[in-house]
Amino acid sequence: MRAPDELRALVEQGLADLTPTASLDGLSEAMRYALDGGGKRIRPVLCLATAEAAGGRAEDALPAAVGLELVHTFSLVHDDLPSLDDDDERRGRPSAHVAHGEGVALLAGDALLTEGLRLALSYDRPQPARELAEATLGMIGGQYLDVTAAQVDLAELHRLKTGRLFAAAVGLGLWAAAVPAGDQDPWRAFGEELGVLFQAMDDLIDGDGYATELGEDGAREVAAAAARRAHERLDAIDADTSVLAELVDGLAVRTA
Amino acid sequence: MRAPDELRALVEQGLADLTPTASLDGLSEAMRYALDGGGKRIRPVLCLATAEAAGGRAEDALPAAVGLELVHTFSLVHDDLPSLDDDDERRGRPSAHVAHGEGVALLAGDALLTEGLRLALSYDRPQPARELAEATLGMIGGQYLDVTAAQVDLAELHRLKTGRLFAAAVGLGLWAAAVPAGDQDPWRAFGEELGVLFQAMDDLIDGDGYATELGEDGAREVAAAAARRAHERLDAIDADTSVLAELVDGLAVRTA
Repeated sequence: MRAPDELRALVEQGLADLTPTASLDGLSEAMRYALDGGGKRIRPVLCLATAEAAGGRAEDALPAAVGLELVHTFSLVHDDLPSLDDDDERRGRPSAHVAHGEGVALLAGDALLTEGLRLALSYDRPQPARELAEATLGMIGGQYLDVTAAQVDLAELHRLKTGRLFAAAVGLGLWAAAVPAGDQDPWRAFGEELGVLFQAMDDLIDGDGYATELGEDGAREVAAAAARRAHERLDAIDADTSVLAELVDGLAVRTA
Repeated sequence: MRAPDELRALVEQGLADLTPTASLDGLSEAMRYALDGGGKRIRPVLCLATAEAAGGRAEDALPAAVGLELVHTFSLVHDDLPSLDDDDERRGRPSAHVAHGEGVALLAGDALLTEGLRLALSYDRPQPARELAEATLGMIGGQYLDVTAAQVDLAELHRLKTGRLFAAAVGLGLWAAAVPAGDQDPWRAFGEELGVLFQAMDDLIDGDGYATELGEDGAREVAAAAARRAHERLDAIDADTSVLAELVDGLAVRTA
């Protein structure tokens, strides 16, 4: 059972080993720029840790985990575009469209999404890619709600925009570990809590979302309650879930 | 063996039967707008006709064919955006971003792409979705070349931007008809000719591309040579390819 940092190193290696589809030519440079932004790789690490806890090999889950990170990166690149959130900076660097131009960033996002799904298609069975495609559709729906609906329910918005990819991280780990569909529910109940936890902490750091709606204490309570439920879900699983518990604790105290 | 018009009706029914993913909410309206633009559905019809010629059932190929049309529609929606081709009109109607706003059109394109791949994931095996994902990456690479490279080889550009989805139409039909990979080459050789034929005719209609580079007569000769080769490829296949031959002839005389 490898620690989160070891799994993160595996993800970084998997990302570095990506061979850009030849026909994409210079487009891979913009994709690489977006991928190299120094994210914490929380989703793919969660995917690998789930696979190991469920009795599989992290290496077998790596294509799905890297695919998930590409899809997450696609969403950042497109969300930053002027017609959506219009963010010029991302993690202290110019956003992809500032660095590479708007048209190229648009296409790089399209390519990251497609390449991410292609990686999830590395398996003999279509289930992992289905999991990722459905989660991606949920996430896009969440972004749509975010940019169009003034009075949207925050919990529903986050369940889609953030929660779906977190839940898919767990689901992809289960498929890679060949856990039968009928045995996945307890793990999936755990995955459902992580998006809430992540988003409440994110809102506390950025001072928006839950922090605006419920105040700082209220947002902290949302996060704490989600962390408690996540631990309860793990306790109900008959497996060594210690690394997943460590990831929950890491999410619950993060400050950046 | 059904005629092209019967297959087209099947495609239209498949598109009409699409149940928009619930979480996408109002986004499905913009997706539907883009899909209902009155296209000729050439790619999905080619997919169904290939499946039937190869001994399969068109109905079995329908999810892949509809998925292919969604991916094609995604490419139109994104290519029309101001940061790429900046086209305000598409088939005589306002483009998706003019009708629904730029941000919503961007997300609708993302959703069409993802939903298209999800449809290609309806099968027990991952091959159809892999075929579509790889073709999509090629197409995106072609669009990248188109918007960034001033002096690009026109044949290479078209092979990617147009050719990859046409070739995938044939490939998807073969997978749906359960043609083993080892028996697909003669069919795929046919598929490779169709993008050239389509694009040369398109350039003649629009007065650009091949028509600019080679003049009207030159472009006509490119189209005629591709049509000849396509018929030769069909003649080399031991199956009733009469409907596919009819589609080639239809492409070779189209005026809109």
